[in-house]
Amino acid sequence: VNAFVGQCVADIDTPALVIDLDAMQRNLAAMATFASQRGLRLRPHAKMHKSAWIAQQQIAHGAVGVCVQKTSEAEALAAQGVRDLFISNEVIDEAKLARVAALAHQVTLAIAVDSTLGVERLAAALQAAGSRLGVFVEIDIGHGRCGVPPRDAAALARSVARHGLHFAGLQAYHGRAQHLRGVAERRAAIGASAQAVRTALAALAVAGIDCPLVSGAGSGSFVLEADSGLWGELQCGSYLFMDRDYADNEALPGAPRFEHALFVKSQVMSCAASHAVIDAGHKSHAIDSGLPRVWGRDDLEFANGGDEHGILRGAALPAIPALGETVWLVPGHCDPTVNLHATMLGVRGGLERGVVERVIAVDARGCIT
Amino acid sequence: VNAFVGQCVADIDTPALVIDLDAMQRNLAAMATFASQRGLRLRPHAKMHKSAWIAQQQIAHGAVGVCVQKTSEAEALAAQGVRDLFISNEVIDEAKLARVAALAHQVTLAIAVDSTLGVERLAAALQAAGSRLGVFVEIDIGHGRCGVPPRDAAALARSVARHGLHFAGLQAYHGRAQHLRGVAERRAAIGASAQAVRTALAALAVAGIDCPLVSGAGSGSFVLEADSGLWGELQCGSYLFMDRDYADNEALPGAPRFEHALFVKSQVMSCAASHAVIDAGHKSHAIDSGLPRVWGRDDLEFANGGDEHGILRGAALPAIPALGETVWLVPGHCDPTVNLHATMLGVRGGLERGVVERVIAVDARGCIT
Repeated sequence: VNAFVGQCVADIDTPALVIDLDAMQRNLAAMATFASQRGLRLRPHAKMHKSAWIAQQQIAHGAVGVCVQKTSEAEALAAQGVRDLFISNEVIDEAKLARVAALAHQVTLAIAVDSTLGVERLAAALQAAGSRLGVFVEIDIGHGRCGVPPRDAAALARSVARHGLHFAGLQAYHGRAQHLRGVAERRAAIGASAQAVRTALAALAVAGIDCPLVSGAGSGSFVLEADSGLWGELQCGSYLFMDRDYADNEALPGAPRFEHALFVKSQVMSCAASHAVIDAGHKSHAIDSGLPRVWGRDDLEFANGGDEHGILRGAALPAIPALGETVWLVPGHCDPTVNLHATMLGVRGGLERGVVERVIAVDARGCIT
Repeated sequence: VNAFVGQCVADIDTPALVIDLDAMQRNLAAMATFASQRGLRLRPHAKMHKSAWIAQQQIAHGAVGVCVQKTSEAEALAAQGVRDLFISNEVIDEAKLARVAALAHQVTLAIAVDSTLGVERLAAALQAAGSRLGVFVEIDIGHGRCGVPPRDAAALARSVARHGLHFAGLQAYHGRAQHLRGVAERRAAIGASAQAVRTALAALAVAGIDCPLVSGAGSGSFVLEADSGLWGELQCGSYLFMDRDYADNEALPGAPRFEHALFVKSQVMSCAASHAVIDAGHKSHAIDSGLPRVWGRDDLEFANGGDEHGILRGAALPAIPALGETVWLVPGHCDPTVNLHATMLGVRGGLERGVVERVIAVDARGCIT
């Protein structure tokens, strides 16, 4: 990317991933205020932005640290100075666990487990390295992916303690619930999740095990986790950029309003009688959660034009954008969109007449191991 | 990626993108033989592999050069020594056209146009730089994306000549036709495409314009373009790696058989009673053309587990892979899958007991401008 600080938005080569820094900072402040008012810890998920600079902005606004999903993500952010990381996911590979144990010497680290084999291997790696970290027992609260059944939390927490490890609490996240459109269905899903957390807490209490913290929640549901009184730490990530998919959710009462802050700048490079073609396809924006929305042009429908093209239809000529015209997209899903790019261009002063204030490295881009 | 030459496949950290070099070279040879026997030029599309080393392998097997889709892709491959490049796509941005014109000093270059504005701007950029390149007029042969209507090819070719540019022929590619499953429907689609090419050729003939070449075709349909006698150059890319989506096509009579050569190595990192969870999600493999297939395990169904997870179901216990077990995926679509990775690990000797022979850089990764 040949962008530079001070460049006018109009001159940014396309396609490019652009952050509206003004909108991002309002989102940052809104979530910080929410967490603070509720007395909750905020540990945003950095799998979304993969950027050490943004993680530091979140920490400067009161976040206790960040979550990551992968060992190599933790390594990449630690290398750029992030000092408090929670790998909110399981690691079972012994070579990878050796890296986790080494990293625990450098930063305050935590990790999730959901199997006794995972506990055994983690303990062996930490013993070999002579390092320590916090261990969260992940429970499945409805997603149906990782995590033990809630009633088994006590047995696994006991195993954690028996191996001389520090039981840091419960990892309790329901990813699919984030994208249930209606308030009622999200409320029902997180209501069931809260019941699952209560089951796990009761099992721990019966076993005489203190649970220091329940960590979880995402940008679609965090008001509900907060209302439950069970969760002590929120892991929301997408609130910072707000993709099209999250914006399509019916807003929960009491939720802060977040603005779109992440955009793909694109350009019309071909025109036909019936449509325009832009230079941004799904190598520019992820489509796993649906297609992007054309920003400020509700009359235009975006159709998938493949890896390198987007097709705009729906408007009658001459309303179809002309050759060379700039078109802004709001990506369907921010996390995998960011992962496609080496840099994000932080713009101050709006998408029309702003300038590039910061070229933000996607430090953990492609860190999938 | 901490892989190295000589590393055993079993020790490759996961998830990782792995090429079976033996299979890839059989695919390479099969396509080279086909083109040679038909007397056709082969210019494989490098948007698929984005690797200068692989482009050089194709050229060593008789390819005249490679196609790319983007200016920055051309720059990245040229920087690594690829000398003959066709940007088979339109560029309308003047700053980008200046880069195209500069690149034309360094390599043998061609580009597509589908508008008089594009021709004017290209001519101005080349004049300013004092460089030359080949200009293909793109016609829409059924895809409905870029390209002028076939009957308008002569007018645009005349404009090319009038601006002192070299008319190199027609760019004629039908992307959607590649993925029509049945032989009959693909035959019908490319039959209509051939008719569109004839219309354009007739218009050129009436205008007294010689058409040096028709370039196009993809891995799903190239036998049909070859049979038509109209196309002189094939642009197939995916044949080299063969993704799940192409393999799902009904094979055309006379088509070489291509093998899967691109795999994602993944590992089971969580197990429940009903399913196993692997460490590869859609940050490891693109899902725009559907989910990956589990290689060698037809009893297992892959379900999307999000950005960082895959969920395996369908097998009865104890057939569900165990914690730590290796699982190989065949990606749904190779092009955007490769684009997610910094390197591809070229393995010799098979996925079970082979070793890493080459760490192949994805030189044009993320080159979307």
